[in-house]
Amino acid sequence: MNLLLLEEADFIAADRVVLRDRRLTHMQEVHRVAVGDSLRVGRIGGLMGSARVLRLETGEAELQISLEQAPPAKLPLTLVLALPRPKMLRRVFQTVATMGVPRLVLVNSYRVEKSFWQTPFLEPEAIREQLILGLEQARDSVLPDVVIEKRFKPFVEDRLPALCTGTLGLVGHPGQYPPCPRDVDRPVTLAIGPEGGWIPYEIDLLGKAGLQPVQLGERILRVETAVTALLARLF
Amino acid sequence: MNLLLLEEADFIAADRVVLRDRRLTHMQEVHRVAVGDSLRVGRIGGLMGSARVLRLETGEAELQISLEQAPPAKLPLTLVLALPRPKMLRRVFQTVATMGVPRLVLVNSYRVEKSFWQTPFLEPEAIREQLILGLEQARDSVLPDVVIEKRFKPFVEDRLPALCTGTLGLVGHPGQYPPCPRDVDRPVTLAIGPEGGWIPYEIDLLGKAGLQPVQLGERILRVETAVTALLARLF
Repeated sequence: MNLLLLEEADFIAADRVVLRDRRLTHMQEVHRVAVGDSLRVGRIGGLMGSARVLRLETGEAELQISLEQAPPAKLPLTLVLALPRPKMLRRVFQTVATMGVPRLVLVNSYRVEKSFWQTPFLEPEAIREQLILGLEQARDSVLPDVVIEKRFKPFVEDRLPALCTGTLGLVGHPGQYPPCPRDVDRPVTLAIGPEGGWIPYEIDLLGKAGLQPVQLGERILRVETAVTALLARLF
Repeated sequence: MNLLLLEEADFIAADRVVLRDRRLTHMQEVHRVAVGDSLRVGRIGGLMGSARVLRLETGEAELQISLEQAPPAKLPLTLVLALPRPKMLRRVFQTVATMGVPRLVLVNSYRVEKSFWQTPFLEPEAIREQLILGLEQARDSVLPDVVIEKRFKPFVEDRLPALCTGTLGLVGHPGQYPPCPRDVDRPVTLAIGPEGGWIPYEIDLLGKAGLQPVQLGERILRVETAVTALLARLF
């Protein structure tokens, strides 16, 4: 945790918060703070800054907050991801938040196992929990938007073309395609497939919506690694 | 598992192997192979190719092997990594093998907790197990070398300068440094610090050995994410 994120409900005054949950435990056990110490904090959806510990007890801490710093810029990106397996999904939410992706669309694909859609990790509270871990890591206070699209074709035909307008549309896909471009100077819409990749029909449909295949070499990367590698190349 | 890796001990003839362990389970439960099916295989430290299932029983499978394909090229890189915490270490071994790093040096640093050096994940067999998972993911058959350097100063002063000769020497480090270069055309020696970063004394010593700090922006990345992001930028 490189940044302590504050919820609206934590505030007892404009510049005071009281913490009682895992953040208190973390402050005490990892940061080992004492009264008077300073911490980096951010208000979820708002500014970042510092907090001074006013009071520290077994069950709660009171902090005085001063927020004046803008959060870091997000990437100019919409990331479209075939739903990963549940264990990977949790880490992908963290990675996406850490890397500064502002909008994530989770979409179905032929090679996504149906059971993946049943995971409790897709509940809004579970998604938010992982995104916050990612923001705490990166020192960012703004949650990415996560959109869930359980049907591939209506999403790609009806909604993706509008999302894609005015952006560089790319699909990360192994094969005989141009290499992923580097250091692009405009917004990107990037789709990344499931384990085993998109099927040709899906690549066709993504192409009609404006997304062209690019590759990262012959090595097959896990989804989480592919997300990081493609974003580090593009921006 | 995108590639089934074969050990010397699996061979019962020049072109025949018998499998009995997790690879057999994986073939049966994930790939659901039948007699006559083909699989991608690689010989550890050797060529890659295909295998045909000759015999399949509850406890063992016999495969006929044909190996003629060279493994993918490695990156022209030595990666020096402050020892990550044990849970992260396992994933880092996989990532390093997947990304094609040929040589990894795990080194001590002021901010590496002493207890991390006690982890069973540093046993040679445990390292090999994770590297193989990473190679299976990427479709590569050549294990990276892993070197363990428990003392920072003797390594950086006495051995790093020679490793670094003729390469571009870089340290990934957040701060007011030049951005990490892109698409470099020569071998690289790259050092990545622990959670919390290198201390100034370490940055100084790495600099004297020929490694100059570069940064990836203001977001703080987990070690595994930083490794992937820096390699995707550099190569």
